[in-house]
This record gives sequence, C-alpha cells and structure tokens, in this order.
Amino acid sequence: MSDLKVGLAGLGTVGAAVIRMLERRAGDLFARTGRGIKVVAVAARDRTKDRGVDLSGVRWYEDPVELARDPDIDVFVELMGGSDDPAKAAVIAALECGRPVVTANKALLAKWGADLARIAEASGASLHFEAAVAGGIPIVKTLRESLAGNVVERVSGILNGTCNYMLTRMADEKISFQDCLAEAQRLGYAEADPTFDIDGFDTAHKLAILTSLAFGTQVDADAIYVEGIRQLTLEDLEAADDLGYKVKLLGVALRTETGIEQRVHPTMVPKHWPIAQVSGVTNAVAVDADAVSLTLVGPGAGGDATASAVVGDLADVARGVAGFVFGMPVATLMKPERAPMQRHEGGYYIRLSVVNKPGTAATIARRMADEGISLESIVQRRPEGQQGEAAQGTARVILITYATSEEAVRRAIAAIEADGVVNALPQVIRIEKD
Amino acid sequence: MSDLKVGLAGLGTVGAAVIRMLERRAGDLFARTGRGIKVVAVAARDRTKDRGVDLSGVRWYEDPVELARDPDIDVFVELMGGSDDPAKAAVIAALECGRPVVTANKALLAKWGADLARIAEASGASLHFEAAVAGGIPIVKTLRESLAGNVVERVSGILNGTCNYMLTRMADEKISFQDCLAEAQRLGYAEADPTFDIDGFDTAHKLAILTSLAFGTQVDADAIYVEGIRQLTLEDLEAADDLGYKVKLLGVALRTETGIEQRVHPTMVPKHWPIAQVSGVTNAVAVDADAVSLTLVGPGAGGDATASAVVGDLADVARGVAGFVFGMPVATLMKPERAPMQRHEGGYYIRLSVVNKPGTAATIARRMADEGISLESIVQRRPEGQQGEAAQGTARVILITYATSEEAVRRAIAAIEADGVVNALPQVIRIEKD
Repeated sequence: MSDLKVGLAGLGTVGAAVIRMLERRAGDLFARTGRGIKVVAVAARDRTKDRGVDLSGVRWYEDPVELARDPDIDVFVELMGGSDDPAKAAVIAALECGRPVVTANKALLAKWGADLARIAEASGASLHFEAAVAGGIPIVKTLRESLAGNVVERVSGILNGTCNYMLTRMADEKISFQDCLAEAQRLGYAEADPTFDIDGFDTAHKLAILTSLAFGTQVDADAIYVEGIRQLTLEDLEAADDLGYKVKLLGVALRTETGIEQRVHPTMVPKHWPIAQVSGVTNAVAVDADAVSLTLVGPGAGGDATASAVVGDLADVARGVAGFVFGMPVATLMKPERAPMQRHEGGYYIRLSVVNKPGTAATIARRMADEGISLESIVQRRPEGQQGEAAQGTARVILITYATSEEAVRRAIAAIEADGVVNALPQVIRIEKD
Repeated sequence: MSDLKVGLAGLGTVGAAVIRMLERRAGDLFARTGRGIKVVAVAARDRTKDRGVDLSGVRWYEDPVELARDPDIDVFVELMGGSDDPAKAAVIAALECGRPVVTANKALLAKWGADLARIAEASGASLHFEAAVAGGIPIVKTLRESLAGNVVERVSGILNGTCNYMLTRMADEKISFQDCLAEAQRLGYAEADPTFDIDGFDTAHKLAILTSLAFGTQVDADAIYVEGIRQLTLEDLEAADDLGYKVKLLGVALRTETGIEQRVHPTMVPKHWPIAQVSGVTNAVAVDADAVSLTLVGPGAGGDATASAVVGDLADVARGVAGFVFGMPVATLMKPERAPMQRHEGGYYIRLSVVNKPGTAATIARRMADEGISLESIVQRRPEGQQGEAAQGTARVILITYATSEEAVRRAIAAIEADGVVNALPQVIRIEKD
C-alpha cells in the first residue's frame, strides 16, 4: 500500500520527537500497518532553527492552515497547542477536507470538542487525540474502545505532572509550597507562570475530555469546579499522612443521581489505593465501571511519551481505524445534567485556626451538628513550633467528617466564622473513598 | 448497517456474562459501532441447564465446530477453554472460513498462537483475544496498537489472581502456604487441583502471549522458565518485608543481549513499585519501553471482567477493526533467540538453613566470592521459635547479592551444599529492579 503522508504543524519538543520516532521505528511501523508513515510537510515559524532532525526534502509552510489543506498529505498532525487559532483553524481546515487529524491539544478539545466532532462526522474524517490526556497513557483508547461494554461510574486521575511532582516533594521532604515551586521552576517542571498547572486548569481540560469519553456526554468544561494546590500547607499534608491518606490533585468525574459531577481539587485518597502511590511527574487514571475497575499509570508529559501516543494514533490512521471522535455520534452524546459542587457528597477534612479559649471546640461541634454533619474525629492541637503566649492565643482544630454535602459544610463553616472563634481562613480538603 | 451476528461456544460464567452484557448495553454498543451485536447461535453441551439468560430463538449446536462453520454467523466467540480440540478445531474452522474469532483462551494461544495467526492471515480473518491475558486489563490492545512507536525492553506482570491472593494473605495475615491454599479453595479462589495456578503454568501461558506482542516474536511458551509459589514460607515473606520488598509471582519477559528471556517465578519487587502494591486477586502488567513505561492494574478474572474484554473485542469486530494477530504479519515475527535461565542476571535472595558452628558464615562467603558474587548483605539468625538445643544446631543465613548470574548462584549453592554446612534445601528468590 502507498505511504501515509503526514503533514505536521508545530516543531517543538514533541514534534521533533515524533519525527525521530517515525524514522527510528519505520520498519516496525511498516510491518504493523502495511504502510510507510512519512512526514512530507511541516509548518513552523522559524525555518532556520536546529531541531536535531533532518527536514531536507520536506515541504515547509508558514501557515498551518495551508498545510492542513495541502491535498498531498493524508493526515494532519497538530502539535502547536492553544485552544484557538491558528490550531483551531488548522484542525478545522483539515477535517473539512475529510482529512484525518491527530492532535495532542487538550485545550482545543476541552473548548471546541463537540464542534470539532460535528465537523469530523460531517466530512467523514477521524480525529485522534490519545496524546491530549495523560500523555503516554492509553486512556483515550481504553475508554473509547476497550470499555465499550461497561457503564462507567467514576473516572479520576492525577493528570498534571507539575502538581504531583510538587505534592510528592512537599510530603516526602517537608518543603513548603513556595520553596517547592521555586525548585520545580528551576528544574523545568513548572513554567515561569505556573498558574495554568498549579491552579488546576490543565487538569480541568483533560478531565473535560475524559468525562465525555467515559459518560457519552458532550464536552462540558465550564461545568468543572476547579481548585488548585496553592493553599496546601505542610501541616495539611502531615495531618493527612497521620490519618492514612495522601493528598493528590485529582480530576474526578462522577455519575450521581442528579447528573455528572466534574471537579478538580486537592483530594485525600486512602494510601492503599494504587493512585495514592503515584509519585513525581507520573500521571495515573482510575476508571470505576460496572464490570471492571482499572488503574493506568504512566508518563503524562515529555517529548517521547507524547510522541508515543501521537505515533500510536498515526498507526491507527495508517491501518484505516476510524470511529467516532468521542466514541459515539455527536447526536448521541447527551447534554450532561450538571451536578453542581454544592451537591457534592463525601467526607471532608477541615482545618480551623481557632481562638484558644474554653468552649471553642463545643461551638464548632454544635455548628456541625446543626447542619447534620457527623464527625469521624475532632482533634485540637497546638501548631508545631508555636510556644508561649502565641500558643495560648491560637490552636488548630482538625475535623474529619463522615459523608455529608458540600452545602452543609460551607454553611457550617460560615456559621463558625460568624461565631468569631476562627482567626484565619479555614482549609477544606475533600476525601475520596470507594 | 446490518447486525453483527454472533455465534458463541461455551456457556459457562463468562459466556452468560457476555450475553447479559450485550443485552444490557445494546443501545450504547449500537451507538458506538453503528450495528446491533446479537447472539444468534450457541454451542454448549447441556441444553437444559438454567444459565439465567434468555436463549429462546437462538440456534443450538452440540458441536462447536459446526457452529464455527455456520454461514449465518459473522463472528465466532470461543469461550470453552483448553489448548486442544474442540476449542482448537472450532477456532480453526471459523478462521478458515474467513470469519473473525474472539477468544478468551490463553492456553490455546500459548500453544498454537503462531499456527492460528498463519491460518487467520491466509484467509483474511481477524483473531481477537483481549480476554486471554489479564482479563479486564486492556494490555493486548495497548501492546498491539497503542505502543506501536515503542521498543519494548521488559514486560512483567502479576497474571494469576489465585497466587496473588495467596501471597497477599500470607504476608498480611501470617498464614502458612498450606492454610492459605485450603482457605482459597474454600472461597473458590483456587481449584481443587491448584497445580495449574500455583505452579505458575497459567502465568506462563499468558506471558507467552504478552512476549509475542511486546517483542514481535513467535509465541514460544516452551522457552519459559517456570517456578511456582509452593515452596515460599512465611519466613521468606517476612524477610522480604524487612528488606523493603514484596514477593509476587511475576511473569517477566526481557530483551537481553543474548535474546529474549522469559521466566515465571516468585520475585522480590521494591515496595514503591506500583506493581508491589497490587493485592488480592487483582492483576497488573508493567511495560518498560524506550518512550514510555506503563503499569496497568485491574481484574484478571471473573465473569464480568472477562466479558468486558470479549465485548470490547466484539465492538472492534463490529466497527471493522482488524489488524494482524500478534501486531504484525506472521512472516515478520522473529523466531526468538532464547536467553536461557542460566544466563539470567540479577540480584538474589538466598536463604540457607545451616549447621550452627564456627566458620559456617566464612565458608558461605568464600563460596560466593569464588563465583565472583558480591554480597549486599549477609545476616545469620536463629529461626523464630527455636530455642535451647535445637537453636544451637541450626541457624538461618540470609544473603542478598548484587547483580550476578543464575549460573554463578547455582554453582555457589552447589559448592556450599558439598561443604556440608547446610542441612535443608536452600531457598532462592530472584530480585527484580529498575
């Protein structure tokens, strides 16, 4: 069969890794797919930059949209990133020509997934995006193909390597959030502006895509409740450890009676869960379905891992594997009922900084009881390092609740604050259980 | 599009679970594949048995080979088990007609994989077997499709739930092997004749299939070194725990300089590895490749988990996904160079029961040194519970070696035995590291 001619837009770390992998694995990929997979055209801004790959004989485009429309490519690979143009325009241009697209662009899919799926379906093009979620972990294929017989109840994952790297170091080496962030930036694990990662937005993009695949719903990124890791303290991580939990930034999508609940926040997970053991920049996704429960662990980012997913998708394209973008026709994807965060039910860890005077614990316990919240434990303690007069003025109260609702917790905390017994912002961490 | 008409041979737990799942998920599967997936014919011995599924209007065959040849089925599902006829004859019959086959039969594939692949290729039929290895874990698809861009270096896995259940309980609850086996049999986790599971043969079958997929080699089950868990004692599990390891029955396939090494044996794995945390009947597979390292954890057996894999394969068949049986054409699959167990290199745990007299440790250390084996540690201790005279006669010596060869270890132990300082069979457990 004739070669699969690839047009590739974006020659950063991942683009170069894809080109090298296609060269290195040419013989094997030919055996697996029956076709050569050849990059014949690229689009990138700087033509003179040395990317360590041989691009002689490859057509150059300044404009990725022009590349996407090149009638002499069989598949368009988009590795530019960004939720809007030029990535969006280029992907749409390729799909409108009926040309298969492979992309690693989570932001684009989270924002425009349903629209892109509609365009792909109309023209009969396929859209592949294994690299967009959890890098080298084959979670898209698993949800889209392998679990077709299952009703998924919950998807949860460590989807951002930067956050997991920081939480691991904070917990293991007792380093503060700020010191850890500075270190992560120095080592290249965090961006100069880390907002996108540490405030949970990157995780939210990936979760939006997983939710659609898992529940057969339209991508609904706006419905996601997002909270990052900025406010976590060493004290919280240590308290979690004492209680038998690890703290992870999780993206969680859950089927509830009122609809699909999507949330990104620091989460206390039992230490014995496979996902609790995942450390450093590694990612993990757990799927709980009616027939199987799976956990997939692997690299979430990096040139080679992302290239692995892109090349896997290209091999599918070469073998003629298509299928619906989100597993089923767009018309079949349900508009998800949103289960708002107020309706969330679960256990809570609540850390209060309180005025150290008689009756404080009683006040807190009463406010909890007023909202019908049962306490698994309530521990009052003096914060470490605090001594003398200050210790007399302030204490920590750590509460662990049995399953209750977000609304009840928020009301109880507001009441406690109104009582004037707390003297700093409360810390709330949700607990995830089986 | 017209329905995908399924002929299903074998109506045990898995067969019934497949029929129920196809009914329960009919609407969703239609959306995903564009076709109804309907069981139209079955083969099973006992027509009168109540299997809790509605089989009215379904054609019955006594002979699965006849069912496989029925021109009015589109796909043949083999859930009978067994490495030979009738399963083998039926699968061949279907493939020879050019009919796709879905099977959960690991023994069949381990023994006849290359032959079946050849027949499938000749007739253009596809052969799907996600359920044959690690039940509900999509490792076949991951190796065959997702990791196409990777050079795999090692595949290792907990592939037998019975063994992992027993090792977990032995370690956690300090129950002896014999008591644990009796308990597992009582609970239905172990067969009345447990040989196939606990002596490692089931793991070996699955490993043979994984090796072929991972390394692009012909299935070579005869090359596997197999050792089960029968000889493990509580003392070994406790010593491993003290040293920072868990003991798991692993199947390991490794690319070495001399060829592909395939082995099944109790293995000490570092506690921080994801695979070390996998407890109970759960399975796990770790793949180390040049671009990614993945660990997949999930249910390895059971009706629903196995049905999930079978139905995932059926959805692929319905969508027209084919592909080579072991990822590439049979002619391309290499005849693997076997790296025999004598050539294995790694660390070793060696427990010796020795005569408690001066010079014993020196004798042992000298024999190790004679073979060029470096010791990470050597600990002599009195076995627990032993007191008085007996304690004076016997002691335990536990050695941990740095990486060395199997040959050297065997020679050293033979020499120590010849020296007359040991008074029981030595215990040897291989250590797996990064």
